[in-house]
Order: sequence, then C-alpha cells, then structure tokens
Amino acid sequence: MTTTENRPTDYRVIGTRPIRHDGVDKVTGRAKYGADANLTGVLYGKVLRSPHAHARILSVDTSRAEAMPGVRAVVTGQDMPRISGRVSIAGGEGGAINLDYYREMILASEKTLFKGHPVAVVAADSRHVAEEALSLIDVQYEVLPYVLTAPEAMADGAPIILEDLQTRSMGRVTESVGNVATYDKYALGDSEEGFRQADIVVEREFTTSTVHQGYIEPTNSTVLWNPDDEVTVWTSNQGPFYVRRATAALLGLSESQVRVIPMEIGGGFGGKILCYLEAPAALLSRKTGRPVEIVMTRAEVLEATGPTSGSYMRVKIGATKEGKITAAEAYLAFEAGAYPGSPVAGAARCMFSPYAIENVTIDTYDVIVNKPKTGAYRAPGATHGSYAVETIVDEICRTLGIDPMEFRIRNASAEGDRRSDGVVHPRVGNLETLQEVVASDHWNTPLEGPNRGRGIASGYWGNGGLESSATLSVNSDGSVSQVTGSVDIGGTRAATAMHAAEVLGIRAEDVHPIVGDTGAIGYTAVTGGSRTAFATGWATYEAAHDVVCKMKERAALIWETTAEQVDFADGAFIHRANPEQQHSFKELAARLMDTGGPVIGSATVSPKGVGPSFSTHLVDVEVDPETGKVDILRYTTFTDVGKAIHPSYVEGQIQGGVVQGIGWALNEEYYYDPQGRMANSSLLDYRMPTSLDLPMIDTVLVEVPNPGHPYGARGVGEIPLVPPVAAIANAIYDAVGVRIQQTPMSPGRVLEALWENEPKA
Amino acid sequence: MTTTENRPTDYRVIGTRPIRHDGVDKVTGRAKYGADANLTGVLYGKVLRSPHAHARILSVDTSRAEAMPGVRAVVTGQDMPRISGRVSIAGGEGGAINLDYYREMILASEKTLFKGHPVAVVAADSRHVAEEALSLIDVQYEVLPYVLTAPEAMADGAPIILEDLQTRSMGRVTESVGNVATYDKYALGDSEEGFRQADIVVEREFTTSTVHQGYIEPTNSTVLWNPDDEVTVWTSNQGPFYVRRATAALLGLSESQVRVIPMEIGGGFGGKILCYLEAPAALLSRKTGRPVEIVMTRAEVLEATGPTSGSYMRVKIGATKEGKITAAEAYLAFEAGAYPGSPVAGAARCMFSPYAIENVTIDTYDVIVNKPKTGAYRAPGATHGSYAVETIVDEICRTLGIDPMEFRIRNASAEGDRRSDGVVHPRVGNLETLQEVVASDHWNTPLEGPNRGRGIASGYWGNGGLESSATLSVNSDGSVSQVTGSVDIGGTRAATAMHAAEVLGIRAEDVHPIVGDTGAIGYTAVTGGSRTAFATGWATYEAAHDVVCKMKERAALIWETTAEQVDFADGAFIHRANPEQQHSFKELAARLMDTGGPVIGSATVSPKGVGPSFSTHLVDVEVDPETGKVDILRYTTFTDVGKAIHPSYVEGQIQGGVVQGIGWALNEEYYYDPQGRMANSSLLDYRMPTSLDLPMIDTVLVEVPNPGHPYGARGVGEIPLVPPVAAIANAIYDAVGVRIQQTPMSPGRVLEALWENEPKA
Repeated sequence: MTTTENRPTDYRVIGTRPIRHDGVDKVTGRAKYGADANLTGVLYGKVLRSPHAHARILSVDTSRAEAMPGVRAVVTGQDMPRISGRVSIAGGEGGAINLDYYREMILASEKTLFKGHPVAVVAADSRHVAEEALSLIDVQYEVLPYVLTAPEAMADGAPIILEDLQTRSMGRVTESVGNVATYDKYALGDSEEGFRQADIVVEREFTTSTVHQGYIEPTNSTVLWNPDDEVTVWTSNQGPFYVRRATAALLGLSESQVRVIPMEIGGGFGGKILCYLEAPAALLSRKTGRPVEIVMTRAEVLEATGPTSGSYMRVKIGATKEGKITAAEAYLAFEAGAYPGSPVAGAARCMFSPYAIENVTIDTYDVIVNKPKTGAYRAPGATHGSYAVETIVDEICRTLGIDPMEFRIRNASAEGDRRSDGVVHPRVGNLETLQEVVASDHWNTPLEGPNRGRGIASGYWGNGGLESSATLSVNSDGSVSQVTGSVDIGGTRAATAMHAAEVLGIRAEDVHPIVGDTGAIGYTAVTGGSRTAFATGWATYEAAHDVVCKMKERAALIWETTAEQVDFADGAFIHRANPEQQHSFKELAARLMDTGGPVIGSATVSPKGVGPSFSTHLVDVEVDPETGKVDILRYTTFTDVGKAIHPSYVEGQIQGGVVQGIGWALNEEYYYDPQGRMANSSLLDYRMPTSLDLPMIDTVLVEVPNPGHPYGARGVGEIPLVPPVAAIANAIYDAVGVRIQQTPMSPGRVLEALWENEPKA
Repeated sequence: MTTTENRPTDYRVIGTRPIRHDGVDKVTGRAKYGADANLTGVLYGKVLRSPHAHARILSVDTSRAEAMPGVRAVVTGQDMPRISGRVSIAGGEGGAINLDYYREMILASEKTLFKGHPVAVVAADSRHVAEEALSLIDVQYEVLPYVLTAPEAMADGAPIILEDLQTRSMGRVTESVGNVATYDKYALGDSEEGFRQADIVVEREFTTSTVHQGYIEPTNSTVLWNPDDEVTVWTSNQGPFYVRRATAALLGLSESQVRVIPMEIGGGFGGKILCYLEAPAALLSRKTGRPVEIVMTRAEVLEATGPTSGSYMRVKIGATKEGKITAAEAYLAFEAGAYPGSPVAGAARCMFSPYAIENVTIDTYDVIVNKPKTGAYRAPGATHGSYAVETIVDEICRTLGIDPMEFRIRNASAEGDRRSDGVVHPRVGNLETLQEVVASDHWNTPLEGPNRGRGIASGYWGNGGLESSATLSVNSDGSVSQVTGSVDIGGTRAATAMHAAEVLGIRAEDVHPIVGDTGAIGYTAVTGGSRTAFATGWATYEAAHDVVCKMKERAALIWETTAEQVDFADGAFIHRANPEQQHSFKELAARLMDTGGPVIGSATVSPKGVGPSFSTHLVDVEVDPETGKVDILRYTTFTDVGKAIHPSYVEGQIQGGVVQGIGWALNEEYYYDPQGRMANSSLLDYRMPTSLDLPMIDTVLVEVPNPGHPYGARGVGEIPLVPPVAAIANAIYDAVGVRIQQTPMSPGRVLEALWENEPKA
C-alpha cells in the first residue's frame, strides 16, 4: 500500500486506523443480526414459491394447511392490500417501484413470473411445521412459456410477461413494446461524425450472466403488528427508513405507524434494500397477534431476491491512429427481471466516463424476463459497461500498438468533462490514478512464464449523497455518545465517529457510535451508493460543530464573557482576550452540569459535493490450457479514494469488491434448466471465490481530496467492483490470446475459446 | 373532579387527555420489563443473604457451590473492586453514597448489617441450580447484637453498627456519635420567643414503621461484560444515567464504558434508583463471558432493597388563642438503615411549610440501624413530618375551638414565606387549594353515623428540576419521532410528547415518543422528584422550538426570503410580508427533503423555576369498635398541580399516592421477630391496600400555573403521598376520639387505643 497525499493536512484522527467500535461484538458473535431478534412468542414463517418460471395461478387452496396443528395463519396474494402508487428508494424517482408490481413481486395473486415467486406464506409454531404446511397448500397453475434473456424477451413472438406493462421512454409512457419496460437514449456530440474521424472502429458484443451479491446472512425479517396498528420491524436491511417507507406503502399505513429496528447486517452490497418479507410477515402478525419471523434459505435468497442483471451489450468505439477516441456507441439490453428496474442507466452513465469522448450515443433497454426482479449490486451496471468498453479499448491499443496506459492517460477524463448523461465532472483523480499505475512496482515488473498474462481496466462510479442525520451527546467524562441512522457496513460506525472525534479534538475511541432505529434518529437514506462515510460522516461533523458551538457558550459562562470571545482549536476552548484561560474538551465536558446541564449536538445533511471515483486495476493471471481454469497471480488496484478517512476500511472495501469481481468474471452465474428454473441455487453450485482462490489484493489509495467534503472524502464502496471483470478478460487475452465476451469466463468457456482459436487440424 | 383555571389559556394539546402512546403495549403485555431482556446464553444469578440482623463474616467458602454442575461462577464481597469516593444520584451531594458503604451494601465482605444482606452471588444455567447452589456456600458468622429503631440505636451502650462511621453535622465531620450518621439543625427566627407568645403549646411524640414502596415488578438487572470491557446493563430503574454512573463507579470503569438500556418499569416510587444487582451481575458476566440476569424474589425486595425510614419524631407547636402559629419545634430521628441516608432532611424542609411560621427549630438525626439502607419513597420524609404536624394542628384547632380550615387559611404560607431551610416560596397555590376545600361538596356535606369521622391534613413538597435531554426528528408525513432519557412512569411519554405537540401545532398522537438508552440520548436525571413532566417536558418544548427554528429556514428557502421573515403561529408557517403564503407543519414536513434534508431538533435543560406543590386531603372513615378496623368511606384531594398537562395522569398520580398513604396509615409495616429478622416479607403478610379496600379517590385539581415553566406545570408525583397518614389519623380521632401517634394504625393498635380510652370499669 502506498499513499499519495495531494494536499498537506494535519488531521489527528482522520486518516488513522483505530479499531472499529463494533469489532469485539462482531468477532465474539455478540452482535445481533436479523435472525437474532428473538421475540417472545414468535411464530415462524415459510414461503410457498412457484415451481414454474412463468405460470398463471388458477387457484390457491390453503384450507388443509390452515387445519394443520401448529399452523397459526396463512396469507396469499389475495390478502395484500390493493394500494396504488410508487415507492422510491432514494426519494423522487430513485429506484421507484410501482406498488402494484411490488405487491405482486412479494406475493403473487395472478401470475408467477419466475421460479421461486412467492404464492403463499404460512406462520406456525416452528419452522418445521411451517415448512410441512407448505406441502398442504394446493395451487393450480397454468404453465406458460418463458424467456430468460433480454434478446429472447425482445424477439418477435416472445411471450408477454407483464400484460399491463407500459413502456416508458425518456420519462414518458410511449407505445408499448412487448417486454421492454424502458427505452432511453443518451447522446453527446455527433457519434456518426465521430466515427467518420476514426482510423479504427471496433465493435463487439458482450453478454453477462445474472450474478448475485452473495451476502452471507440470508434475507430476513421479524414483524410485530400491535393491536394499535403500530408495526415494528426487526431486519438486517441497508435502509431502515426505506423499509419503513416501503412497508407503510405496501400495507396502507402512514410511515409513522411503522418503526424499523435495524439489526446488524451480514452483507448487503445493494441486495439488502428491497423488502420481500416485511409485508407478509406483518399480515401474518396481524392475523395471529404474535410476532412473525421469516428467514430465507440460501436457495430462496438466490432464486427470489434481486441479483444484478444479465445483459446483452453491443459496443463500438472509434479512435484515430494516434490513439484519440473519437466516438463511442452502445446498445444495452439489460434484464430487469420480472418487474421493471435494471441498472442499465448506471451502465450508460459510467461505461465511457473514464475517457473524454465528445461523441457518444447509447441506447438502453430495460427488459422484463422470467427471473427475479434485479436489485442493486455495488456500482449497479458499471461493471457490465466496463467489461465491454475496456475489452474494446484493449483491442484498440493492441491493434494500434499503443501502450494501454499511455492510451488511457491520453484519453483520460478530467474536471469539466461530461458523462454520457451530460453531468460534468467536478475535481476528480482519474489522471492521478493512472499516473500512479505507471509508477507502480506491479506495472514495472514484467510478468514471465507461459500462459500468463496481464490485464488492465479502468472504471468510474459517480457515488451518492442523500440525506443523513446524526446526534451527539456529551458525557461528563468527556466521551461522546453518537447516534446515526446508517446501518454499519464495513466500518461505518468508526468512519463516522472519526469525523466527530476530529472536530472535537478527542480520540475516536472516545466517541461511542450506535445505529438508531427509525424512531430514534432523523431520516437517513440507505447505507449504499458509497454515500455513508461521505454523508453520514458529514452529518456527524456538523453535529460536532453544533456541540462546539454550545460548549463555547458554557466556556463563556465560566469566563464571564460571550461565546464570540471563545475560540476552539486543537481540542481546546480558549478565551480569546485571555488565552491563558483554556479548557480541553474533556475538562469542559466535566463542567456542563454546573453551567446549564448536558449538551447535545444534532445535524442533518443532504450534501451536494459528491466526489466521483475512478479506479484502474492491474491483474496477472495464469490460464491452465488443459482445464481452462484461470488463476489470479497478482492483483493491484489504484483508486482515487479522496481523503481516506480510515484507510484500513477503504482497503477492506476495495479488497472485497475485487473479490466479488473475480467471482463474477470467472465463476458466478445463474444456471437454468430447460424449464427455466435456476439449477445451482446453493453455495456449492453457485461458486463464489474463497480465500484459497485469491492472492493478496494490493490496494493503492490515491488521495485526491474531494473539495465537496470537509475532509475530502469520496465514496469507495462501489468503485472496486467496476474494473475487475474487464481486467481479467484482458489478462486472459494477454495470457492465451482469446477474447471472451461472455461471463463467467469459466473453465469450460475458456477451453471452448482455446479450442476455437486453435489452427484447424 | 373540578378544575379551577386561574389564567385563560388557549392550549390545543396541553390540558387534554390523549391516550398514552405506550398504552396498548402495556395492556397487551407486549411492553418489555426488566426480566424480559431475554439474552441469548443468559445465566441466572441468585444471591446468598445473611440470615442474621447483625453478624461478622468469619469465612466464606464457595468451593462446593462452584463445583456443582451447572454453576458457572460465584462472587463474594472479596471480588468487588476496592474503590473509594462518593457517587451521587442528583449530581453534587444529592443522594451521594460513600462507595465503601455502597460496595459493602451490595456484597458484604466484613459484616452483615441486616437480615437479607448479600454475601455471595451464584450464576448458573438455571434459576433452580443457582438457588440450590446457595445452600452449598458455607459462611461462618459471629452473630452480633442488633438495633432496629433510631432511639434504640442512639441509646447508651447500643451496639455500634458501622465501626468507622464518621458523624457529620452541618456538612462537616464532627465528633463521632455512635450510630448517628448525620446531625443537622434548622432554625428560623427565635422559637423560644415564639413559644412565649403562644397561648397554647402542644407537644407530641410520633413513631412510624418502616414501609416499602411496594412496586409490583421486582428489582432486576441483566448485565453483559463484553471482552472489550464495554458493559451493557438492561434494567428497570428510574435513572438509567444514574445506573451508568453508579455501576461505573463501583466497578472502576469510566461512565462511557457502561451503557444502560432502560426497560419498562413496573413501579418505582423512588425505590428503583439504588443499584443492588448491577455490579455483582457484571462481575459474574466478566467471569463467565455470558450475560447474567438477576431478578429478586418478593422477599428479597422487601428485605433487602431500600424502604423508607421508620422514624421517631417529637414535635411541638405553639399558637395564640386567635389561632396564629407562633413557633414550632421538632426533634426528628430517622432510621437510615444500615448505611447513612434517611430522608430526614425532606421531613425537616417540608413538615411546617404549609404554614407561615416565623420561629422554627428542628433537630434532625440520621441514624444507622440493622435494617436495609433506606431508599427514596415518594416525597421522602414529608409524609412522616406531615403526620406529626397535622395531628398537632388538629389538636390545637379542637382545643381552641377553631375551624381547622379557617386555621389553615389563617396560617397559610404564600409567596415570599420561607421553608425551615430558608428557601423562599415562589408563587404557590396553597391558599387557593384551601379555598377550594372550603367550597367543595365534600367539605360541605356533613358526615353522619356512629364511629364515623372526618379528617383533614395539609402537605407540601418542593419538587425537583435537574437535567433532561430531548431530540425530535421530523418525518416526511408530518409526524415527529421523540427521544428522551426519562423512563416512563405514569404517562411520561404522553406528557412530554404533549409539550412537543403543543409547540408544533400537531396532535399528541403525531408525536412518537421513545425512551432512549444512555448511548442514544443526552444525560437525563432520574424519573423522580416529580421532575419528569416538568423538566423533560420542558426539554421537548425547547427541542420543538429548535425544530420550528430550523423549519422556518426551509420555509424561507421556498419563499425566497429570510427566516426572520417567517412567522410560526397556530401550527402554520406564514410569510410575514405575504401572509397568504402559508404552510402547515405537515405540509412543510413533506418538503424537507427538497429543501436541504431532514430536520432534527434537540435540547437539554437544567431548569430553575421549579414549582412547589401544596395539597390538602379530606377523608371520611368509619371505625369498627369491635375489631379496630378502619374503613375509608370517602376521600377527596385538593392539590395545586400548576397547569395539568394531562389531567388524567395527574389524577392517576394523585390516586396512586393516596392509596399508598392509606396503606402506610392503616396496615403496612416491617414486622420483626425477636432475632431482628423481618417476619412478614410477602405480599400476603405485608398488607398493601387492594381495590376492595378503597373508595373512589376524588381529585380536585387546583391549577395555579407555575410561572417558572412554559406551560405552568408543577410536579405532582410525590405530593399526594404527603397528607394521607395525618388525614386518616385525624379522621380516626374524629370518629372514635383516640389519637394514634404510631403507624400503622392497624386494627390491633386502634383497639388498644380504644380500650385505653374506655372509662376503667
């Protein structure tokens, strides 16, 4: 790890590596995750799911199940309230879902649209009884033809999945186009003209398989519907306030009737946002008067929560022989799953953004298929887009004989350049990152040996802002109790507490951060979008300044002066007129009770100034030509992380993202049988990388401070998953001379490509 | 119930009777009390207690217990850290306890000072195993002579209970006086001269028995000592922040290492403040690595938590024949229990305060006896003092032939008069309350029938202020989430939420109050001292004003003006320059996300302006001359409550206090066997009133607003327990002509008095 400091700073806490506050709880098993809610009198829910990829529900008879001893209640799609409207994840249209679709997704009443689609839920005294009761529910289906990929779904004569689907284009309802939910166009400049200026144009097709976030803790929810219609939810979700909003909307309650208690979360990566279990559990709780807990099995997680899209991409890039990109075009058809909402817009915004390209045209299609509705997955869409673009860039460089780093530096986007959706880059660290690659040991160490190759790929992610809240209470021993609304993923408590500690001149260990529930803290958007250290950290920063402001008044009281006459610097309150009069933060904290009582600071933020992130990855691989297996020999990331608040957790985020990228690149996929049913819904068959598959992931943090944040932080949670698939594809080509344009680049697929490449006998 | 409004108000919420927010949870059994913490892997603790009233511990052998299967750990007094200093309840010296005494009280290492004094604590897999293991602990005692009352303990030759006791007087250590912990003197004017001016002087002696608060939920605590030395406590205590302070002090930790999660509380009345179980449970948790739960049995609660003092009082009052009190004197010797700290100062401050008396002398003694250390009990000390003073006042009135109401009105203290400790009354409602008695139906309805009598008594209580914190978060549906640090007793959530609702122009139901733990909210003193609706209500009032202030800025943003140009009135934000532009609170709440994000308001208070309370009670009784049993026929209270925030909960507080007073007067007492052991430690034998013993308690709320509180609130939690014992004593005299100067005025004691009064045959 090397660090580039681009501006001098004298932070005491920011940039250090204190032990995380929740560390001991997590390593000792004390931390309480979703399934640990452990309520008295709890009932256990189990979900009956469609065995068919696409079927009409003719009838559901729950009477035999309801009569089974130990079964307390059964709900079906008919029990869900009929409420219309849309519910968003991020406010506005961000991730908005039509409630009619949301309801059907959670509990189908008319058709099942994928294998695993819920049809009924049983609550019983034990999990075993509930599971047994599922077999007593009689569902009559009319099985329908299905489609699993976007091109199939867009083909003439494809079965129509959502009969009432309204195709939207550029924000408006347009003529209905089969299974296309959304059709959008992005354009910068004149790409036809751009391609005319090109000396070389490369156009390639890519397909990616559906892959899952692969969080270890299964999706879960425990719900109690009180007789006063106050509903309490215990769940491990990235967004307790989103759970509140969605659950209230689905049940026809006001938000204030729902209280969501966030439990610790065993991985999310974007996949723990949508609410699958809350509404049925709530209805079962209302029927029974008891809390109802539902915890998915691994197969349910894989088959029926939201993975990211499989995709079809056709991408074309033109460049001059000097290596200047003149134009780019893309046709992106992403699988939405059974209901609208793929991350195709994320792909479109990010895929060309590492480069300053004047002429860009992108057509995007969000396409309904018979798979579970996709959810967010760490930089949603950007990985797909990077895979296509960076593979083509690699091919152009090789064809033109230009060093790929030189090519990237020459085309690097910078402050003032535009994304394909027109958004202008603020100060970014793209070029600095590329320069760090060129200067690195990895880049400058030749890779030797047969069947070995080095790949390089760049990526961009815009990061998020959104609303966060924080309160700080000063204890008389000089410690501070902190409450935020951000579920802790990857060190959130530590990173946000460090903001407060930096302001207050105390140690990170003196701040005691907890995650408040929706009744205890102000609105805070999801832990996601790489926004948490940035925005919730900022909220704690502001709350700490509120504390300082109030404590200045106390110091003024003691010194018989005014608050304006009190300075605060280096953790000390100083009498401006008489600088020998000083109180450290701790000293003054001990005197609060005598000077008007305790002090609380609070703040809410909805920050602009989000700092986008760029990253370039270098990977060395060795391909076994006998088996097609790809081994990762060495992996180094170069990422503009802004100021790294807690470098260890930045490194951890990057390492985790790369591992997911390696899995996506080499092994992970949803494999379907001829009936359209996922055939590998276990972690034995859905193959994620283990530590044995991986080298140490080396992370170079390039710290180009984000001028939009008090300490210069940029989001880092998502960017590490953008370049890996492309980097590995390029490394395989470098090793064995085959371009694989389909994920996963599994042994079989590598072998097939090698065989195809062989000179015919 | 009649209400006197002394000033016009146009409150929308204050003074109404919304359903309490926690009502459904409590009537359905969902509310989680101390014993419901229900942690995974919990061990159960049981306490071995001294069978002797006073004994030296010669040896403790825990080896057989530790060897018993299922026993996980045993701690004794030797395991408690040796830490010196004092820990206070209210900050400063308020309720301060010497840590050496506190430690010995919790777990004796040298001597046991009362029957039930803890000697060892076992943690085991089940309660039954733990209990069984107690019998395997071998303790060798040297039994010592004991004393149970203050006069006995002060007698020459009495056994010395605390060998290192330092007698204190007027705040200083003085010559040691046996078992006297504190000797103080109060003086106003010249009482000798006052008595010289008197035409009548009455002096009487009174004794009261030890009585318990009688809360239904037993004392409990569950503690987890984490490997990182962070200690979490789940307990039903009136003061989570006090538990934090005391537990940290006893264990030698910093306050920020201890987090206290307040559970619902099944009654406290002052008795759920001292920490009996936390430190031993913490030590057992540290030894075992598992959470340890200890729940007392009823016998343990009665024998080993802090009841209020038994007392000996000698009181003298002089008056002119016109009925003007000229002087008063008192000698008060209160039982501290085994360690210093009786409420004798409360008695001294309050007993004469209903009257404007120029010449007062009081001598107080805090005396160590072989009983559990006393705790607070609802207006601590004031009930005792009122019993003595009001009985003598009644006798003076009868002797002089002056109507007792006329006498009280003539002598009534008012604004500017002094308490015996020199504190000057602010605006108080004493006279208004007395006038309300004279105007009442009860007073003007003659009581007829043999053996029936009417009693009257007045009382005073100063009430408390202290620190409180509150935060309010505005939800986008216009509801507000509230967090305070005040454990809910008798409607705290509702009363405090009503303050916020009144300010914000929304309904009480739109505020969702929760009780935060010590990590989630700013320092908040105990729910006690009749301070909670007053001070925590005030904190929510200030937090709501903080919300209004921040929302004005948002309205200004929408209207493109400055916050100074935005008024807030009747729940609406109004553009001052253009009053047609208005937003209701709810409307503006819905627009917060577009105008900078969510809004949190926070506030802390440490209010002066505490409003003392006066009350006069009327009671009609019938005495059965055959059995001595006293029936309560009719009971009416007249109380200056300031502005009643939620009249139903004010009435409930008063009714509950009166019921406790009736129990104290007629039945409740600690009864001791010849070995100095409590002999009636069950609720069958310790006889509290049941609903069958009671008439409807009629409560007249006299609302003289407290000018020291924004809505005029006074504390009401304690004052109702001040006059009942005296009122009933006076009623018994009125009925059958005997003055009973000892509580309880039980059937046996009444009969004995009647027999003594009979003309000798």
